[in-house]
Amino acid sequence: MYDRLKGFRDFYPEEMSARRQVFDTVEDAAARYGFREIGTPTLERTQMYVDKSGEEIVEELYAFEDKGGREVSMTPELTPTVARMVVAKQQELSKPIKWYSTRPFWRFEQVQQGRFREFYQTNVDIFGSEAPEADAEVLAFAADALTSLGLEADDFEFRVSHRDILGGLLDAFEGDVDTRDAIRAVDKRAKVEEEEYLGLLSDAGLSYGDAQQFDDLIATGDLDAIAEFGGDDVESAVENLRAVLSAADDFGAGEYCEVSLTTARGLDYYTGVVFECFDSTGDVSRAAFGGGRYDDLIESFGGQSTPAVGVALGDATLQLLCQRAGVWPEEALSTDYYVLQIGDTREVAADIVRELRAAGNVVETDVSGRSFGAQMGYADSINAETVVIVGEQDLENGEVTIKEMSSGDQTTVPVDDFPGDDDAPTYEDYK
Amino acid sequence: MYDRLKGFRDFYPEEMSARRQVFDTVEDAAARYGFREIGTPTLERTQMYVDKSGEEIVEELYAFEDKGGREVSMTPELTPTVARMVVAKQQELSKPIKWYSTRPFWRFEQVQQGRFREFYQTNVDIFGSEAPEADAEVLAFAADALTSLGLEADDFEFRVSHRDILGGLLDAFEGDVDTRDAIRAVDKRAKVEEEEYLGLLSDAGLSYGDAQQFDDLIATGDLDAIAEFGGDDVESAVENLRAVLSAADDFGAGEYCEVSLTTARGLDYYTGVVFECFDSTGDVSRAAFGGGRYDDLIESFGGQSTPAVGVALGDATLQLLCQRAGVWPEEALSTDYYVLQIGDTREVAADIVRELRAAGNVVETDVSGRSFGAQMGYADSINAETVVIVGEQDLENGEVTIKEMSSGDQTTVPVDDFPGDDDAPTYEDYK
Repeated sequence: MYDRLKGFRDFYPEEMSARRQVFDTVEDAAARYGFREIGTPTLERTQMYVDKSGEEIVEELYAFEDKGGREVSMTPELTPTVARMVVAKQQELSKPIKWYSTRPFWRFEQVQQGRFREFYQTNVDIFGSEAPEADAEVLAFAADALTSLGLEADDFEFRVSHRDILGGLLDAFEGDVDTRDAIRAVDKRAKVEEEEYLGLLSDAGLSYGDAQQFDDLIATGDLDAIAEFGGDDVESAVENLRAVLSAADDFGAGEYCEVSLTTARGLDYYTGVVFECFDSTGDVSRAAFGGGRYDDLIESFGGQSTPAVGVALGDATLQLLCQRAGVWPEEALSTDYYVLQIGDTREVAADIVRELRAAGNVVETDVSGRSFGAQMGYADSINAETVVIVGEQDLENGEVTIKEMSSGDQTTVPVDDFPGDDDAPTYEDYK
Repeated sequence: MYDRLKGFRDFYPEEMSARRQVFDTVEDAAARYGFREIGTPTLERTQMYVDKSGEEIVEELYAFEDKGGREVSMTPELTPTVARMVVAKQQELSKPIKWYSTRPFWRFEQVQQGRFREFYQTNVDIFGSEAPEADAEVLAFAADALTSLGLEADDFEFRVSHRDILGGLLDAFEGDVDTRDAIRAVDKRAKVEEEEYLGLLSDAGLSYGDAQQFDDLIATGDLDAIAEFGGDDVESAVENLRAVLSAADDFGAGEYCEVSLTTARGLDYYTGVVFECFDSTGDVSRAAFGGGRYDDLIESFGGQSTPAVGVALGDATLQLLCQRAGVWPEEALSTDYYVLQIGDTREVAADIVRELRAAGNVVETDVSGRSFGAQMGYADSINAETVVIVGEQDLENGEVTIKEMSSGDQTTVPVDDFPGDDDAPTYEDYK
């Protein structure tokens, strides 16, 4: 007997059925917004990730040398791959480019609640628009996906921030501040003690007093005060943030958004608006997912300057949020019909099965030559709504029996009348 | 600029849209038969493949040592993984177990037409029934999937064979015949010269004369003569093959099946009925896909003896078959509405967009602040059926313009009447 690898998951049908409903709901929302599905490779050259994130990233990757001597990695995220794809067809693609996909990704990291080595994400991105409407469309899609899952306004909130506000504020202080390190410190703010956080800001080049003042500014979130303190660059970033929120209002996502400048996002490549989705009750403490603007990435991949904004919904934390809110789909099979055979009735049963399937129903029948009781037990195990009993004796009278499984009620029906013209006839139609 | 790895593919939206339609059609057919979707890991322990196929298999795998020192491989096929999953929950799962899934697999091999290093398969399997109805259900599903794609009876054929007929016949000859090698030789029959093929049979232990006699028997496919020659084991295998074909008849797949004992399938683990799907015109020379019975695999994985039968439809050859038959879906985007904004009309446009999306339509609108002409060009590029023009001047009269893109016809409509009660209103409804 072989074991499954740690951090990897098998999904059996009941759990998979719930996951499929959730994936489909999120993807349907993306499709309604005119995002188009793409398909992407599982392996990319390791160099792509090293160039983007530094040599130390390799320790977190499933990286190896392939049989042809290429250094390759199982993709840890989609963004570099879609950036590569945009650059490869930059001239042909009409802008804005709006793409989505759902697939697994891999990171070699500690396994914990809501964090696996193989995880699934739906990525949704817009390339080619720097307008605030593009940021807002991503927010509106995300809100639409969540409400389509049954989540309500008091279940979740989007904490919206802006990298250029944080960066501009940091630049406004004396001294040589390392913006990247300081923003990474802000990203850790909620996860570490205050002293450690202020220490990280000091390490990034802020004096202790400046670190406190900086934190006061972003914690209050008073955009007017911040714009005044930070100068022109911060003022235009504040203006951009407000424009995004205004567009999000028009697009129906305003009620889910709140300004939260202590939200920073960990990834280095973000450039403008960033946001994270949180459980409003706080029961799920980690961000459910996040996204933001990354206007410089395509150019850094050798393409023409192309603004970009996107979001990635991960399966594990989204599941935690849905379960907390009681909207995770039931993990159960559903079956429209089980066609039960007694004796040598396969030919008639098969005709009924074919007609019901042709009408789009989920239909099972005996493929094991089993007894009435075993078949009835199986029909029950797959949650069959209706059992059609095709028995030798009934057939001599030209009849089959239609049994409603929820009530146990049943009736005989002329075999010529079943399934009849109705796509999904039930006991109720014949009783 | 980074390059894509050889043998891996990027799918842009137009091509992906066709692929998605094909995947969905195949999966919908599986779902109607009561196959249930499962989700499976991308990595497994390399040992699992070595135990099953020998040390030489590693050369064809994307195999490596992970950061935790485990020897792992990117899954080259699904069967070992589902066997592992069946064994892991053998007691809990009610039989028959009927599973499907669609996902990529990886093999490090020469890239050629219809063969990539990353390829996609829909796997469909039944565990726990040794009855011929199970084999027939797999055949019926496969036929249903293909006809749902638009293929017709003269487009494809299932060449059905039986491993125990081949094995039993081989045993009926004098001498010590290596059944595995001989069956591998049969699998190569159509791909090599006759002399080489007979040589391979000789290498497997048949005299040259016996090799010719064996080939005559399987080439004629005269089941009565074969049963008479082969003795009891072959006779019962012939009986099983006939029972499968009879059940396939009842299940509506008979017309696609023909006995073809020169079909052997390459994989060692098949035990009973095996089959391959071929292009009837011969234009696509390789098998589009294949499947068969593998009753011993679960036990070899440490589980209870569990009969099994399945099929795997690969993306590349299935695409070649569909394209040859002219039923490959059009590789094009489709969009129900583009809502075009002229001037400061975002708020009204956004309301219309939201209503249309809520009714399930694919709707795009401007997120780039572009001109009338640029927006119209974009609407055309995404094949928008209807453009809703929301202009400042029209709005002063309380109107929007509805333009049918195919004809260029347009009319104005009171903004309060659009979209109205209809889920998908068009120019025709207002003209």
